[in-house]
Order: sequence, then structure tokens, then C-alpha cells
Amino acid sequence: MSKKDKEDIQKEEIENVTQEPEQNKVEETEAPIEKTELELALEKAEDFENKYLRAHAEMQNIQRRANEERQSLQRYRSQDLAKKILPSLDNLERALAVEGLTDDVKKGLEMVQDSLVQALKEEGIEEVATESFDHHLHMAVQTLPADDDHPVDSIAEVFQKGYKLHERLLRPAMVLVYN
Amino acid sequence: MSKKDKEDIQKEEIENVTQEPEQNKVEETEAPIEKTELELALEKAEDFENKYLRAHAEMQNIQRRANEERQSLQRYRSQDLAKKILPSLDNLERALAVEGLTDDVKKGLEMVQDSLVQALKEEGIEEVATESFDHHLHMAVQTLPADDDHPVDSIAEVFQKGYKLHERLLRPAMVLVYN
Repeated sequence: MSKKDKEDIQKEEIENVTQEPEQNKVEETEAPIEKTELELALEKAEDFENKYLRAHAEMQNIQRRANEERQSLQRYRSQDLAKKILPSLDNLERALAVEGLTDDVKKGLEMVQDSLVQALKEEGIEEVATESFDHHLHMAVQTLPADDDHPVDSIAEVFQKGYKLHERLLRPAMVLVYN
Repeated sequence: MSKKDKEDIQKEEIENVTQEPEQNKVEETEAPIEKTELELALEKAEDFENKYLRAHAEMQNIQRRANEERQSLQRYRSQDLAKKILPSLDNLERALAVEGLTDDVKKGLEMVQDSLVQALKEEGIEEVATESFDHHLHMAVQTLPADDDHPVDSIAEVFQKGYKLHERLLRPAMVLVYN
């Protein structure tokens, strides 16, 4: 039964009830107090029924919103820490790029890097792809003129990796792009 | 409002309507229609008032619980990612302990370490103190007999650091303890 149907039924009930005494008015003059009381009571009943229906509907809204919010908080819970960890990953990459590292040191750095990348991945954080320029994911910090070998929007170099958490961008990739 | 709730309400209304005339039959014989209607209306009003009050109270409960849950989710949001990052910190410490690192490499590693520790700290994650043994925070992986210089529960060595997120333990410190 829809809410409207219910209201209609209620209205009908009230109309039936309120009309009846009217019809009997001429015949019965005693008990006018009851009539007022009845009207008042019916109004009160209708009032509280409406309040109840509204409260019930609102309760469901609150529950729905709370669920949505909970899901969103869960989905993006790692966002703040992940953002703060990205500079450590950058530093690691820079450290790995230093020339003349011994194999031990290199292995150690790569182990740290792999475990960080893995930890981020498990929480939904991954590098943004850099196949072709996309202003939603990349920031062009420098440009080169496009030519036959380098079509418009092809990426020449990635200066700093970009990352996203699920579909949400944490930071754009800094790129050198042909245009 | 669910279909079931509505049906319940309807059922109750029907029951009220069918029961009341029975009860009033014996005592009052005049104007039984007005009296019954008034009583019905008053009961209906009371019924919906109670339902409204209950729904309202429940609404407030739901809101309160949702707030508490939101606060808890916010407070511990970094827990999962932080736990997964701790092994990277361990690996970094091990890499820094390797002998014969060049100053550049050492500086690079320390920079990564500092930035990781700082990121974790900003999210509420810190090392657990290891002044004196506390079974809530530490795991004794090895023990030594206590003596005059080393009282019971003093910690001889920390094999692996422990971490907590606010007051919640992420992992205990692995320690060598006198007992």
C-alpha cells in the first residue's frame, strides 16, 4: 500500500467520522462536547499519524545516509596516509637512481620499495597510467612540439608518478607532453 | 515505511475498531456511536503518539550510533594501511644497519625513513615506548635472569619496534626482557 493510498484511506475515515455527527445534528442536540472532543481527537490522531509517518521515513533516510557515508569512509579511509607516503616513494626512487650503489644496498632499497608499493596496492592505491595525456590524471609541466614521430598528447617523460585511490586521484603525474 | 509495518498498523486499526463496541455494549446504551468513535479516535491518537515518540527516540539513537561509528572510522581509518607499511620501515632500518654505506646512500635512506615516520605520526601512529616491560605493548621473545643491575621487567633489547595508532596497538614490540 503506498503512502498516498494510506492517506486517502485515513482521509476517508476521518470524513466518515466527522460527517456523521453533522447529519445527526438536528435530531440530537445533546452532547455537543463529545462532538468537539471527537473532532479534536481525530485531528490529534491524524496529526500524530502524520508525524509518525514522517519520523519513520526520516529514520530510513538517516539510516541510508549513514550507510552510504560508512561505505565512502571505508573506501577512502587510506587516502590521507597514502598521500603522505607518496613523497617517501619518490625519495626511494631517487635513492635507487643514484649511481654506484652496491648490490646489497640496491636489493635493500628495492625490497622497501616493493613492500611499500604492495601495501598501497592492497589498500587500492596505484600509479596512474601514462600512455596518453589526460588532463584528469596528468599535469603537463613542460611541452614539446608534436611531429610525425610524436603525435599530439603523447607523453615524452614522466617527471613524477601520479597515484589514485580506486577511481579518486591522489595526485596527478607530472609529465613532459607533445602538443 | 515497509509494507509489513503498514500492514501491522492497519491490522491494529482493524482490531481496535472491532474490539471496542464489544466492550462498551453492556454499560452504555445511549449514543453508543459517538462514544465509541471518540474512544476509538482517542485510542488511535494515543497509539500514533506512542508510535511517533518511539520512532523519534529510535531516530535519535540511530543518529547517535552513526556519529559514534563515523568518529571511530575516522580515528582508526589509517589502521590497515599503517599495519602494512610497518614491514617497509623494518626493512629500511635493516638497510640502514648494513655496514659500509656511502654517505649519500645513508642520507637517502634516512630521508625515506624520516618521511615515512613523519607520515605515520601525522596520522596518529607512533612507536610504543620500551622503558619497562608491559605485556599490553610488548612481546617477550626471549628472557634473561634479573639481577642487581637488571631488575625484573627491565628491557635488555628491542628486536623489532612496536607501533600504536592513538591508544590502539598495531603490533607489539618484540623484546628481550629480564625476569
